[in-house]
Amino acid sequence: MAQTICVGVIGMGWMGQVHSRSYNVIKDRFYDEGLLPKLVICSDNVEARAKEAAERFGFEQYTTNWQEVVNHPDVQIINVATPNGLHHEINRAIAKAGKAINCEKPVGKNPDETISSYEDAKAAGVVTFVGFNYRWAPMVQYAKQLVEAGELGEITHYRGRFLNGYAGDPNNFLSWRFLSEQGLGTLGDLMSHAIDMAHLINGGIDTLVGDKETFITQRPIPTPGVGTHYDKATGKEPKGDVTNEDYVGALVRFKNGARGTLEACRVINGAKCDLSFEIHGTKGAIKWNMEQMNELQFQQKMGDNPAQDGYKTLLSGPAHPYHARFNPGWGVNIGFDDLKVIEAYNFLKSYATGEQREPSFKAAYDVAQVQKAIMRSWESAGWETVQY
Amino acid sequence: MAQTICVGVIGMGWMGQVHSRSYNVIKDRFYDEGLLPKLVICSDNVEARAKEAAERFGFEQYTTNWQEVVNHPDVQIINVATPNGLHHEINRAIAKAGKAINCEKPVGKNPDETISSYEDAKAAGVVTFVGFNYRWAPMVQYAKQLVEAGELGEITHYRGRFLNGYAGDPNNFLSWRFLSEQGLGTLGDLMSHAIDMAHLINGGIDTLVGDKETFITQRPIPTPGVGTHYDKATGKEPKGDVTNEDYVGALVRFKNGARGTLEACRVINGAKCDLSFEIHGTKGAIKWNMEQMNELQFQQKMGDNPAQDGYKTLLSGPAHPYHARFNPGWGVNIGFDDLKVIEAYNFLKSYATGEQREPSFKAAYDVAQVQKAIMRSWESAGWETVQY
Amino acid sequence: MAQTICVGVIGMGWMGQVHSRSYNVIKDRFYDEGLLPKLVICSDNVEARAKEAAERFGFEQYTTNWQEVVNHPDVQIINVATPNGLHHEINRAIAKAGKAINCEKPVGKNPDETISSYEDAKAAGVVTFVGFNYRWAPMVQYAKQLVEAGELGEITHYRGRFLNGYAGDPNNFLSWRFLSEQGLGTLGDLMSHAIDMAHLINGGIDTLVGDKETFITQRPIPTPGVGTHYDKATGKEPKGDVTNEDYVGALVRFKNGARGTLEACRVINGAKCDLSFEIHGTKGAIKWNMEQMNELQFQQKMGDNPAQDGYKTLLSGPAHPYHARFNPGWGVNIGFDDLKVIEAYNFLKSYATGEQREPSFKAAYDVAQVQKAIMRSWESAGWETVQY
Amino acid sequence: MAQTICVGVIGMGWMGQVHSRSYNVIKDRFYDEGLLPKLVICSDNVEARAKEAAERFGFEQYTTNWQEVVNHPDVQIINVATPNGLHHEINRAIAKAGKAINCEKPVGKNPDETISSYEDAKAAGVVTFVGFNYRWAPMVQYAKQLVEAGELGEITHYRGRFLNGYAGDPNNFLSWRFLSEQGLGTLGDLMSHAIDMAHLINGGIDTLVGDKETFITQRPIPTPGVGTHYDKATGKEPKGDVTNEDYVGALVRFKNGARGTLEACRVINGAKCDLSFEIHGTKGAIKWNMEQMNELQFQQKMGDNPAQDGYKTLLSGPAHPYHARFNPGWGVNIGFDDLKVIEAYNFLKSYATGEQREPSFKAAYDVAQVQKAIMRSWESAGWETVQY
Repeated sequence: MAQTICVGVIGMGWMGQVHSRSYNVIKDRFYDEGLLPKLVICSDNVEARAKEAAERFGFEQYTTNWQEVVNHPDVQIINVATPNGLHHEINRAIAKAGKAINCEKPVGKNPDETISSYEDAKAAGVVTFVGFNYRWAPMVQYAKQLVEAGELGEITHYRGRFLNGYAGDPNNFLSWRFLSEQGLGTLGDLMSHAIDMAHLINGGIDTLVGDKETFITQRPIPTPGVGTHYDKATGKEPKGDVTNEDYVGALVRFKNGARGTLEACRVINGAKCDLSFEIHGTKGAIKWNMEQMNELQFQQKMGDNPAQDGYKTLLSGPAHPYHARFNPGWGVNIGFDDLKVIEAYNFLKSYATGEQREPSFKAAYDVAQVQKAIMRSWESAGWETVQY
Repeated sequence: MAQTICVGVIGMGWMGQVHSRSYNVIKDRFYDEGLLPKLVICSDNVEARAKEAAERFGFEQYTTNWQEVVNHPDVQIINVATPNGLHHEINRAIAKAGKAINCEKPVGKNPDETISSYEDAKAAGVVTFVGFNYRWAPMVQYAKQLVEAGELGEITHYRGRFLNGYAGDPNNFLSWRFLSEQGLGTLGDLMSHAIDMAHLINGGIDTLVGDKETFITQRPIPTPGVGTHYDKATGKEPKGDVTNEDYVGALVRFKNGARGTLEACRVINGAKCDLSFEIHGTKGAIKWNMEQMNELQFQQKMGDNPAQDGYKTLLSGPAHPYHARFNPGWGVNIGFDDLKVIEAYNFLKSYATGEQREPSFKAAYDVAQVQKAIMRSWESAGWETVQY
Repeated sequence: MAQTICVGVIGMGWMGQVHSRSYNVIKDRFYDEGLLPKLVICSDNVEARAKEAAERFGFEQYTTNWQEVVNHPDVQIINVATPNGLHHEINRAIAKAGKAINCEKPVGKNPDETISSYEDAKAAGVVTFVGFNYRWAPMVQYAKQLVEAGELGEITHYRGRFLNGYAGDPNNFLSWRFLSEQGLGTLGDLMSHAIDMAHLINGGIDTLVGDKETFITQRPIPTPGVGTHYDKATGKEPKGDVTNEDYVGALVRFKNGARGTLEACRVINGAKCDLSFEIHGTKGAIKWNMEQMNELQFQQKMGDNPAQDGYKTLLSGPAHPYHARFNPGWGVNIGFDDLKVIEAYNFLKSYATGEQREPSFKAAYDVAQVQKAIMRSWESAGWETVQY
Repeated sequence: MAQTICVGVIGMGWMGQVHSRSYNVIKDRFYDEGLLPKLVICSDNVEARAKEAAERFGFEQYTTNWQEVVNHPDVQIINVATPNGLHHEINRAIAKAGKAINCEKPVGKNPDETISSYEDAKAAGVVTFVGFNYRWAPMVQYAKQLVEAGELGEITHYRGRFLNGYAGDPNNFLSWRFLSEQGLGTLGDLMSHAIDMAHLINGGIDTLVGDKETFITQRPIPTPGVGTHYDKATGKEPKGDVTNEDYVGALVRFKNGARGTLEACRVINGAKCDLSFEIHGTKGAIKWNMEQMNELQFQQKMGDNPAQDGYKTLLSGPAHPYHARFNPGWGVNIGFDDLKVIEAYNFLKSYATGEQREPSFKAAYDVAQVQKAIMRSWESAGWETVQY
């Protein structure tokens, strides 16, 4: 039976828009599942943005007051896509209202807030979800299947990273992203994806030792109202200090015995969206990179025929998880937004069935614990144990 | 001012669905353009399919009678996505009704029907469009810009092809796709994309010489009602003859003096969706392949610094045409369905403004003339001139 | 038992040097084979070159008169690496002298001369060899094994080409390479490699239709004594007409039923040494490119597991033919000169055992017959049958 | 003026052979340099190997007693290619004899021996060289030039690694390579290359923190006389403990402020000879991998034209360092052995001119200091400073 689920969305920037448009195609993409999200109300503190979103996506109402979304009597599930600093307070209010939450990552502006949000939701017994969207690439899901099926044997190495240059220009303004009082830098942002991917593919981390660096130490101070981290300064503005990290690196020992590294940087050159991993086991190996999200490199040891031992390039197609929801063709690419549709489906399905799927706030909590261990390691200059 | 445009869709298989879902996101993806397509009525000869489509995409009505779509008083524009053999009759009816047409390729089951549809539409003065969707990849559009801006110098070579294995299994049923009385084989299907791409990137063809082959000469005869070319036989069915071509190849001389090849095959191994081109000029070269649709290989001669002469791999991003309509990220892939959205936008824009954009039925006519020249060459075993 | 074989080399340009240095490492690289080539005499019409070669490689004597090499009483085998126009006369003299010949390609400046050289050698009963060196890449030899073992099933397509830009600068002098009275252009030079590779991998050609073009129609006339095709003009020299072809293309039908294309160009941009082939069969496919000569792309159909169907990248290693002669490491590249060592070994082995290996002048004859068919097709503007 | 230099080689396994054959082509490859190495005497404790080497490479004498090589009155320079455990004693004797030394890496079986060898040679004032051969790839040398010329701007990241599976089979015998009393494991072997490469490309390391692991903890005990690490056991042999490390990882902070990682493993799957690096700066980035040693990935920021920002693939050619010594062709690969020829040339040139080139024992000393810091970090579980 088809089930209508009433939705509110808070924060109508890029991610709020992506979440909204994802709901609008669920009925089509997952037709046989009978999930019918209904866009009830959206909010943004900039009224024009809220209004435009309502028009674009068909929300019945809009508001500049997020509490109205939380308290709307019809709304059953709420997506949170505000700046990171507001997540914690909003999540708490939603949990209190007993509604399901899909919060963009990071769930809190720092690990403690994330942990707190997790505990709030757990106490309230609500369904949760977090926007670790790269998980949903069919080739990532397929990699997970291969690892779980033992196709790589016992895992010996895992390397994960997220190299991105979105903040690579020193003339990007000193937005909230660069200020420690408003949250972590790369560790909270890019690294959270790399950690979640490691958890998905290779499981928990036992101990680690981390490093960090800030390469661009000062940035132009924005005039109130303008100057997000995407805008560029004229060069004549006064400058202020960047107070959180551009780069994070870690050596990690996984619970399964594998060794490896995690790295992320927001000011790197060359890489565009290089969220990638390599995993090696006693029987095979896999490589994947978000920049070629429709491909997977897969190797299996050919003991008796080493002449045919090499990485195979697999192209996403209907035999891989979820791909056929989008098209029936081999080598016919799906896009990033499609990953958010899969995410929305899994959140809705969790809500509709009451069976919590992952990544929930528990997944965010796990990432937060790794982040905390990395932060402790920055202080101790030594190895730290992750406290899941 | 926003403009509501009433839409009918005929034929609700994969392509009919893709066209319908494209309309549903136009308001969002091209928000500033004020185009508001409204899904009025769809049809399919299988009622369940029409009904499901109406539900999935929100058509107000559905029918099993395509004439109802054509004659619906509200409907202004109509998409045709039936089996190829019906295109001609339907296109003629739509043109007669004075409505705009977006017909999937091939416009006719053979070049003459395509030419006839073009003439019908021209006589009726209606806006037309054809589903040469691969054109719309941002990296293809960018390649076109580079060529037009002279970044490659004078063009010397162009190689285009479409290698696909969708019919590679000899146990695929002998559907209408394999019967000459129902239309061309690979020349009408895959090759039409390769020819259109050549026209887009490198312009018109002067003369050519072609070849063809059928590699799988017999296929199982389907029981009525089952057995499309995607289904597999048990192996016990009686077999019938394949009467159109699996493979087409041609040597071509372009009007601009470039030399090259065109090839297509529907039964090839290895390639998945290898619609690709290479273009070389006196100053540079470009390579593109649909299997990595978000990438472009671009080389420019480095006369004074040969140590730095090589192909650069560009990843689709917001500085490339249309990409920012889908996401603001570098290296954040868009998908195949997004190309159909761009196509729908350009068709709507043509209709709304009355300024015919390409690819219209004229583009299909041009492809048909190349197909006719290839067919003449099969007969003459010699070079033929394209009669645009 | 080790066998000393006395060698003469005629023509000490790049290729003459490569041949000479190959002989010097045979004892080492093929130690167990007991082949001991001894460099007796070399010649070049430029004395300084002959003298330098004698010093570099340890020839006992040098001369400016190639007849001395032919007639030297000790010399048993002779390598011919002069400009193409002299090959025929020299080959004839060597055959008459009853000595073995390893001639660089093309064996004749045109196909008729090649055929004549073949017949001379056959009449004389001497061992012959030709410098189709790209054959010897371990990954090419391995590809041949895979095809012969039926790993690709029945072959349906073969595409071969040699794209190179060595003559891409219009200021390259009008050397002998660009004058028809001194021989063919690209058809004789680059295309001969592409044809030989097709013969090796996919066997004989039944019929074909060809095209040609000259893109750079005039070049600066060199002052006698300077100005090879590698030198550049000042731009003030008078210009003369290029009278042979820059580009050759052909559609081909192979004897085994496969269809495909052959192409070569000497003035192309982007490609550096793109001698490459793709071969597709009913069970698999292979791609190889000289620019990555240590790699092979190998696909096999995964009927029951399409999720794992893709091209595998194999890196040359000790399990592939000849690789272990050069190093015992996987992924440890060998180089182009090593291919000439393998060639020299096979020539020596042919001479030592009297069992003619390939590519002999027969292979050159076969290539010449394809060239002749292409030339006839230029005239007839239609399909021609190859007369092997 | 040509200069004859008398050579001795100690240890005639793979590397001793490669060194010997390199000398034999110096006169040819570096003809204009006038360096004439003469192979006087070689030694190996297995007489048959010494004898074979003398025959293959043309040594005047051979012996089973390495002291004879050291003390031979004619010998001026000596290459050391024995098992690692003997290097120190032999190097000391050579230094004492006042002769030049080219020792394979690692110079000592552990860092202290390497340091000691460095000091011995320094005290004796002899020219030294070490077999960090991957340095000599033209594309690596070119990368170094680009970095030094500031083409990447200020360096922010460097990642180096050497992933190899040569010991990946648990049935490889427990040879000296796996026993700590005979030296380090991966840290001494593969990692030394990765560290030297980092020094070459990015300079000195300030501090680091390291990790290690042994994945295959037991291996079959070899019968005396058979069973190197390349041989395979029957599976019935008794097993002994592997007492040194399979894997080493480190986080590093370079003196120039860059952050990064170093990793090496000898039992990994998938990688064949993945000695690779990535370096990122404020203006550009470079990637290189020994598996494709003839290629370089080079990116430069395109501030004003982000649509054209991407990695360019450069193919080794005559405009890159040393390539033209081997062939004049673009995209015409050179091989691994050619790198050893370049190494031999630089050693000979150092000896002939008295101007010590790098990598000398000083480079090995520098690597040893990094190794020592990593070993200290294993103990301290914290960051350590490198004591160059």
